[in-house]
Amino acid sequence: MNILIVLAHPKPASFNHAIATCVRDALLAAGHQVTLRDLCAEGFDANFSADELARGNIAPPQVREHADAVLAADGIIVVHPNWWAQPPAILKGWLDRVLRPGEAYRFGTNDKGEGCVIGQLKAKAALVFTTSNTPREAELALYGDPLDNLWKRCIWGFCGIERVERRNFEPVIASTPALREQWLADAALMATTVFA
Amino acid sequence: MNILIVLAHPKPASFNHAIATCVRDALLAAGHQVTLRDLCAEGFDANFSADELARGNIAPPQVREHADAVLAADGIIVVHPNWWAQPPAILKGWLDRVLRPGEAYRFGTNDKGEGCVIGQLKAKAALVFTTSNTPREAELALYGDPLDNLWKRCIWGFCGIERVERRNFEPVIASTPALREQWLADAALMATTVFA
Repeated sequence: MNILIVLAHPKPASFNHAIATCVRDALLAAGHQVTLRDLCAEGFDANFSADELARGNIAPPQVREHADAVLAADGIIVVHPNWWAQPPAILKGWLDRVLRPGEAYRFGTNDKGEGCVIGQLKAKAALVFTTSNTPREAELALYGDPLDNLWKRCIWGFCGIERVERRNFEPVIASTPALREQWLADAALMATTVFA
Repeated sequence: MNILIVLAHPKPASFNHAIATCVRDALLAAGHQVTLRDLCAEGFDANFSADELARGNIAPPQVREHADAVLAADGIIVVHPNWWAQPPAILKGWLDRVLRPGEAYRFGTNDKGEGCVIGQLKAKAALVFTTSNTPREAELALYGDPLDNLWKRCIWGFCGIERVERRNFEPVIASTPALREQWLADAALMATTVFA
C-alpha cells in the first residue's frame, strides 16, 4: 500500500519523531511504500490567505503537492503532540489548506434531497498517534478527549475514511526509556496491523 | 473594563469582521477600553519553533506584545469561523505561542499533593463567537460541538477564566441580510451584558 505519514513536532529529537520514523521503518519492512512528511522540517506554511480561500482558486505548489499525496494515499498516519486539545498550528494549517473542497470532500445531497458532505478520499484507513503529558484519567475527567472526535468524525470521517484508529501516549514527560521503547513497538505493531 | 478582541478570518469583508467591529463599537459605546487584534491583517506568525518551545525561552516581540495584552485584559473575546471543528491555524498558532506557561497558567499541586494546572489569567469572563455553514442540528448529530468544550474547558478554563460564553451563528452562507443584522445585534448585546 501507499502510506502517507504526516508529522508535526518542532523538535527533531521529539518522541513524535521517534514514533514517525519507527512506524515508517516497520511499514517499509512490511513491503509498503511510505512517504514521511515532517511539516516543521520542511517549513510548511500554515497561513490560509484570503486569495487561496476564494472558491475556484488554484492551490499554490506546496499545497498542491501535499494534496496530491493525500489523494494518492491508501492509508494516512498522523503524528502530533496534544496542544490545547488540538494539533499544533502547523498541522491545523495543513488541514485548512490541503484537504480541499472538491478533492478531499464535496457537498452533495442525500436520498432525502438534503445537503450533505460526501467524503472523497480513497484511503480506507487512518491512524493517529498523539502524545501528551497529563495522566489519562485526569485528562478525561477535566477535558474529555477532544482529539478523538476531531480526528475520527470531524476530519477523516468527513473526508470519507471509514476506519480511523488512534493511540495517545501519556505522560511522555514522566516515561522511562523502557516504556517509550514499548510504546514505539506498540505503534509499529498497530501500523502494520491496520495496514496489513 | 479593558477588553481584548481577537479576530481570525482572512477576508476583510467576512461576517467575522462584521461581528468583531460591531462588538467593539458596542463595548466602546458602553465606556470600555477595547483593543481589536485582526490576526490575519497583521500577519501573525502561527509557527511555534523549536527554539521558542524550549523551556525558559524569551518570547519574540510579536508574541510578547500579544501575551501582555492577554495578561492585561479584564475580558477576552474571540471571533473565528469553524474550520474542521477548530479555529483557523493562525488562531491556533496564537494559542500555541501567546498562552505561555508560567503566565497564562502554571503547574502546581492540589490539596492532595497531586499535580494540577492553575489558571493565571486575571480575566473573569470570555466570549467566543463562531460561524459555520452547517445547519445546527446536522452539526450536532454528525460532529457534536467540539468548539464548545475546546474553548470553555480546554483553553479558557485551563487558564482560569471562570465564565466563558459562546454563540455560533449558522448557516452564514444561507443567511439573509436581515438575519445577519439580527445576529450582529445579538452579539453586541451579549458582549455588553457579559461585560457590564
